[in-house]
Amino acid sequence: MSRIYIVGIGPGNLLDMTTRAKNTIEVADVVIGYSTYVDLIKDYFPGKHFMISAMTREVERCELVMKKALEGKNVALISSGDSGIYGMAGIMIEVVNKSGHQIPIEIIPGITAASTASAVLGAPLMNDFAVISLSDLMIPLEAIYKRVECAAVGDFVVCLYNPKSKTRSGYMEVAREIILKYRSIKTPVGIVRNAGRQNEKYEITTIENMLDYEIDMFTIVIIGNSMTYIENGRIITPRGYKFKQA
Amino acid sequence: MSRIYIVGIGPGNLLDMTTRAKNTIEVADVVIGYSTYVDLIKDYFPGKHFMISAMTREVERCELVMKKALEGKNVALISSGDSGIYGMAGIMIEVVNKSGHQIPIEIIPGITAASTASAVLGAPLMNDFAVISLSDLMIPLEAIYKRVECAAVGDFVVCLYNPKSKTRSGYMEVAREIILKYRSIKTPVGIVRNAGRQNEKYEITTIENMLDYEIDMFTIVIIGNSMTYIENGRIITPRGYKFKQA
Repeated sequence: MSRIYIVGIGPGNLLDMTTRAKNTIEVADVVIGYSTYVDLIKDYFPGKHFMISAMTREVERCELVMKKALEGKNVALISSGDSGIYGMAGIMIEVVNKSGHQIPIEIIPGITAASTASAVLGAPLMNDFAVISLSDLMIPLEAIYKRVECAAVGDFVVCLYNPKSKTRSGYMEVAREIILKYRSIKTPVGIVRNAGRQNEKYEITTIENMLDYEIDMFTIVIIGNSMTYIENGRIITPRGYKFKQA
Repeated sequence: MSRIYIVGIGPGNLLDMTTRAKNTIEVADVVIGYSTYVDLIKDYFPGKHFMISAMTREVERCELVMKKALEGKNVALISSGDSGIYGMAGIMIEVVNKSGHQIPIEIIPGITAASTASAVLGAPLMNDFAVISLSDLMIPLEAIYKRVECAAVGDFVVCLYNPKSKTRSGYMEVAREIILKYRSIKTPVGIVRNAGRQNEKYEITTIENMLDYEIDMFTIVIIGNSMTYIENGRIITPRGYKFKQA
């Protein structure tokens, strides 16, 4: 029986993909994804049958995947980062469940953007953290801001996905103001654009100065907790290990 | 000049390791890690020089890594899951910084346990989530419980790492009581033991019944938000996509 694989490709380069993800794409009859992500990987899989779909067409994309699976094809639906973190896993399962069809679905994780960005910045995620998307396409904005506030109160390190897009501006600024009610203006902030991709750029700054840098939909923003510090160009959130006296 | 690589090996099987992690271990002169994690991967790298260290000896382990690097060796320090999420990246950077030595350090992310567990359970992490370790070896317990409460108030999906160990019991029960103040007793809960490893076991249950299952230090517990539901044996946190009427 044909299967649907929901494959997390990580940042999109072959080195940061798992062997399972690579093998799955190699043996799939057809690979379906948003055009930007297909473009990232298609040269690694010459001769592979790729099909692309537009960014806001997630339901249609999943219906296409299901159609191909019902035609007897093994389909790999690709998702950037981890397919299970703000990825295609949920909507794909929902589309199949609602259709009533019985199609085996396998979810293959990838390196999520928080991990890729964190590795670039140093070690900001050594302690508890909250992952929040600032995209309000599917979620009320007030629920997002409430989460930012709860994360700030709990002294979580905060990872912001989708901090800005062409149609959404000002959210990052509001989130920053909320966090500032609870955290020092000198708190370290890491801004990573195109993490793990060509043209990767990063900045290590503070809440005070974070708005001076370019932040867009390809950017991850990591805001430290009350213990986070910057040393030798890296952001570190200590876990509390005891060191010998020098 | 020799380098230190802090390598996230993911769950520990070769298929779920990235190519970058695998390549790095292959070319390293020596690979150092906690014995449990060395045991997971050593058969994949025959002839490789492995050195092991005990679990609570993180500082000593990093000092050994630094010593080997100062001897001119390229050293891979392995860390389960993602080296940057509760992993060895922070302490390794801190040990080198405090020593005053200038040794290049590269962090190589891996699939974190939340991703591996999530893929087993379905799609619980399609919306904002908080990652909390219940280990109070390095963090005051009251700070941990405060975070659990903040995550509950913010309606975050909650991923609990290190929910229990031989010396820590009862924390999971307290965390559950805190979350229950804000969330229905029918909220879906996924419990994954040895995620991505041999002997992987998982349970899909609810807050009501979660304590009926075995939870130990090799277990990840994922507690849904107010929207999370169970269908066809999978946990799904919907993102809010609109479906066509059937």
